[in-house]
Amino acid sequence: MSRLTRYVPVLDWGRSYSRDALSNDLIAAVIVTIMLIPQSLAYALLAGLPPEAGIYASIIPILLYAIFGTSRALAVGPVAVVSLMTAAAVGQVAEQGTMGYAVAALSLALLSGVMLLAMGVFRMGFVANFLSHPVIAGFITASGVLIATSQLKHIFGVTAHGHTLFGIIGSLLKHLPDANPITAILGAGATVFLFWVRKGLRQFLMRLGLSAKLADVATKAGPVAAVLATTLIVWGFGLDANGVAIVGEVPQGLPPLTMPSFSPDLLATLFLPALLISVIGFVESISVAQTLAAKKRQRIDPDQELIGLGAANIGAAFTGGYPVTGGFARSVVNFDAGAETPAAGAFTAIGLAIAAVALTPLVYFLPKATLAATIIVAVLSLVDFSILKRTWNYSRADFLAVTATILLTLGLGVEAGVSAGVLLSLALHVYKTSRPHVAEVGLVPGTQHFRNINRHKVETCPGLLSLRIDESLYFVNARFLEDLIFERLARDKTLRNVILMCSAINEIDYSALESLEAINQRLTEQGIGLHLSEVKGPVTDRLRTTHFLDHLNGKVYLSQYEAWQQLSADQTRFDVA
Amino acid sequence: MSRLTRYVPVLDWGRSYSRDALSNDLIAAVIVTIMLIPQSLAYALLAGLPPEAGIYASIIPILLYAIFGTSRALAVGPVAVVSLMTAAAVGQVAEQGTMGYAVAALSLALLSGVMLLAMGVFRMGFVANFLSHPVIAGFITASGVLIATSQLKHIFGVTAHGHTLFGIIGSLLKHLPDANPITAILGAGATVFLFWVRKGLRQFLMRLGLSAKLADVATKAGPVAAVLATTLIVWGFGLDANGVAIVGEVPQGLPPLTMPSFSPDLLATLFLPALLISVIGFVESISVAQTLAAKKRQRIDPDQELIGLGAANIGAAFTGGYPVTGGFARSVVNFDAGAETPAAGAFTAIGLAIAAVALTPLVYFLPKATLAATIIVAVLSLVDFSILKRTWNYSRADFLAVTATILLTLGLGVEAGVSAGVLLSLALHVYKTSRPHVAEVGLVPGTQHFRNINRHKVETCPGLLSLRIDESLYFVNARFLEDLIFERLARDKTLRNVILMCSAINEIDYSALESLEAINQRLTEQGIGLHLSEVKGPVTDRLRTTHFLDHLNGKVYLSQYEAWQQLSADQTRFDVA
Repeated sequence: MSRLTRYVPVLDWGRSYSRDALSNDLIAAVIVTIMLIPQSLAYALLAGLPPEAGIYASIIPILLYAIFGTSRALAVGPVAVVSLMTAAAVGQVAEQGTMGYAVAALSLALLSGVMLLAMGVFRMGFVANFLSHPVIAGFITASGVLIATSQLKHIFGVTAHGHTLFGIIGSLLKHLPDANPITAILGAGATVFLFWVRKGLRQFLMRLGLSAKLADVATKAGPVAAVLATTLIVWGFGLDANGVAIVGEVPQGLPPLTMPSFSPDLLATLFLPALLISVIGFVESISVAQTLAAKKRQRIDPDQELIGLGAANIGAAFTGGYPVTGGFARSVVNFDAGAETPAAGAFTAIGLAIAAVALTPLVYFLPKATLAATIIVAVLSLVDFSILKRTWNYSRADFLAVTATILLTLGLGVEAGVSAGVLLSLALHVYKTSRPHVAEVGLVPGTQHFRNINRHKVETCPGLLSLRIDESLYFVNARFLEDLIFERLARDKTLRNVILMCSAINEIDYSALESLEAINQRLTEQGIGLHLSEVKGPVTDRLRTTHFLDHLNGKVYLSQYEAWQQLSADQTRFDVA
Repeated sequence: MSRLTRYVPVLDWGRSYSRDALSNDLIAAVIVTIMLIPQSLAYALLAGLPPEAGIYASIIPILLYAIFGTSRALAVGPVAVVSLMTAAAVGQVAEQGTMGYAVAALSLALLSGVMLLAMGVFRMGFVANFLSHPVIAGFITASGVLIATSQLKHIFGVTAHGHTLFGIIGSLLKHLPDANPITAILGAGATVFLFWVRKGLRQFLMRLGLSAKLADVATKAGPVAAVLATTLIVWGFGLDANGVAIVGEVPQGLPPLTMPSFSPDLLATLFLPALLISVIGFVESISVAQTLAAKKRQRIDPDQELIGLGAANIGAAFTGGYPVTGGFARSVVNFDAGAETPAAGAFTAIGLAIAAVALTPLVYFLPKATLAATIIVAVLSLVDFSILKRTWNYSRADFLAVTATILLTLGLGVEAGVSAGVLLSLALHVYKTSRPHVAEVGLVPGTQHFRNINRHKVETCPGLLSLRIDESLYFVNARFLEDLIFERLARDKTLRNVILMCSAINEIDYSALESLEAINQRLTEQGIGLHLSEVKGPVTDRLRTTHFLDHLNGKVYLSQYEAWQQLSADQTRFDVA
């Protein structure tokens, strides 16, 4: 694969594009386009942007991803969590509905795009690993709750603000007396209908005799049916005159050329939100892409994915969009509908462009409550608190991280929640390494293998202490080992030799080296031998650059068994040199 | 030892206090008192406080430490680095010389005292370990440079401000034209004299025939001699009228009862500086205490030391002082002078109280330039850039941490410097664990021991891949292992079994568990066996709470040798269950 095709995968798959693939991609594109029209409008609403922004964000970004991305099925565009994060970030710098708000959303997309691109070029896809699985699961669940709650205002036809659960609920309760009853009936009706479509329609249709495949298609058309029905109701009864909020006029035309703001102040304020959006968007996207690729034994290149998503976001920034990423629902639909190559995405973009030019007048009477209902039903499928139970059973540290992520996301907002989750996970990991497990080991009879004396039936030798240190030695735990050894020595005055079994020591940093030197010196003063066994190659290499091995009063043994053989035979007291 | 004597060590050593100990303690106290009078005034000057604050900070805090501390030789009071940090912290909230400034210093001492006490009661002495040795060394060196530079203004008799190296030098250069020549001559003379006292006087006196002991005493009296000489010169020639800045009137009397401010805003602003001062003061103090205790085979209890230092700082807050800790120079002098118990500290406090009541008029004509000279000469002994060379040779990560600490301390100030050092050390450690060393291992002939095939002559078996993973598996590196295994499998299509040798895996968190499940599933699909060997007790315990071991397509072996024996014999292709 040449350098160019590595960075522009379209040159690879495009060369062997077949007629079969074309027809499959076209069918998938039609299905995804129909699904994306209401979804794009709805997510724009969630992001606090005019509805057309959602459509625009699905056109050029999809095309750019089709050129630069590696996933065959990923559908890029506005997604729920990133839309919520956009609203939280841009809400800090501008009022919803102003020009400044839309421009700030463009700047956010640009920043995010440049970050993703830079991470891709510098092959920094690994940063996504800093979000642990439980933190992501907790964050997505809490975001789902926040999003659903934030949409209730449209269901009731009131105004409400806030980026935290209590903020939103408080604001909602305050305005509830102004609720519009007709809006509420429409909104609640659409919500119930969509829940039923999701949970019961498929079985109902199959009981009526429809094939499973047809029933599936009908289920996916549910949101479109809700959109059509409520639009017709509002139009037919003139309900917009009765206070039902509608989408209204949406400009007809292709995505406009737009210019994000480059104000240094604005970019500085949006820097951290953009970073979080980039990393979370990337994690969501890559998870979907890898899941789908694994089903067809295809490979995803995470660094190239960063480049694809980066290009998509930069595209969004200059064509009236806002931050985008690979969405779960739309990608699964695309995959299920038979998409074979990223060309399906390109055809979807064309379909949406046609919709933007020709169909926007049709959504004039579409009630916002219906869009809110589609969001609520979609995001509640993201809500899954089972991660709490699963981590509780496995590891309290993971449980703590996920609980903090959920509570802080709900209580302080998305940015605080996910940042706290990452930092807490790291802090807990460091804390665990600060008090390492140290096992006193003995020989498993009949083998050359050494195990914890408290867990296995093993042979020990009087006067000889073998300690297996289950952690790398570094500044955070350097003092711990020193305290532990001398506390152990104080309890057993007959000890002559100490062997540190280093099979689990993957690193010894400068602080730990100084600590080992201090241990060696104190043991030497007490006439006790200090020996090392099973020191790994990289650790030995580094120790050789110092005088520690010269000062060591004992020896370094290749294996613990060798050390044991020599030292258990040596019953004479160690002589201080 | 009862609970009470654990928390109040004076009840332990006080009971067996002997006449010999009394006379040794008294002698040490006299020597330390003489040394502390100019030092206390000088450090108060460095902290931006009136000179008497330095004396006050040495009286009640010493008494409280004598009751609650565990070190027999530690001398508590103002020290250079903490004085500098106090100036940086309090300078953010008030102007030097104002009442608010002195009150904020009291609040800082109170906050720091409460934090230390809380850390002691909750046995959190381990937090000190987060400061790695190189970071401390770099921080102390950079602080020494900052302190020395900050005192040049007094040597030249000008005003200058700033908490960073460039800030101080810039301000100094701007005001240098206003320098007072007489002050400069006095200051430079005192500095040169004190350097000579430190470097050459001892040898000079011994060449004159003095005993080593007497020469030592004379060397220590150097600062007192400089104080006396310059005070007499200023008084004799009336130089204060010629613009030489003098200490002036210092209130005569015992430490006053003072009340720190409890303003929530102030306490919030001072919170982080107080935490840094607490931790750094504790690290400095405990290092000195442990070094001195080791020489006499005494034991220091870090958690009780926190309580002792906490009590001392709270004492300082209510008696006109500012944050204190155990100082290196004064403790060594105390130790060398023969102090046997904390009573020496109590006698020093009495000596200083007498000085505060009776001797303050004597320092009226003491030039501030002389105090600055004593600080400069004292702190330059802290400056030691050799840590750069030592860490460079041993570990680039440690080198990076110490370099960042030094540069940021000099460039942005003490708080930014030490915080960056700690965070960078942790980040580098986490980064290292994100790309763990993984060794392919084989059997060392004639043993049951397995080593890296690239470093040792070992036996391998076709179709069998043994990987030793040299790191705990957790979210940061969970994906890494998956990529590595499948990249390795892609290169060798003949593989039938993979053994993960887990001797260096100290933890498997929830994310890594999910990753292992994914690896197991993909290997199962490809008809390749996945086996684990040498899984540690705590890791096994945790895996047993999940279904992973049931799903695992291969086995868990006690030792790598056992796994090797079984699987190298089994030449049949693994059967998918």
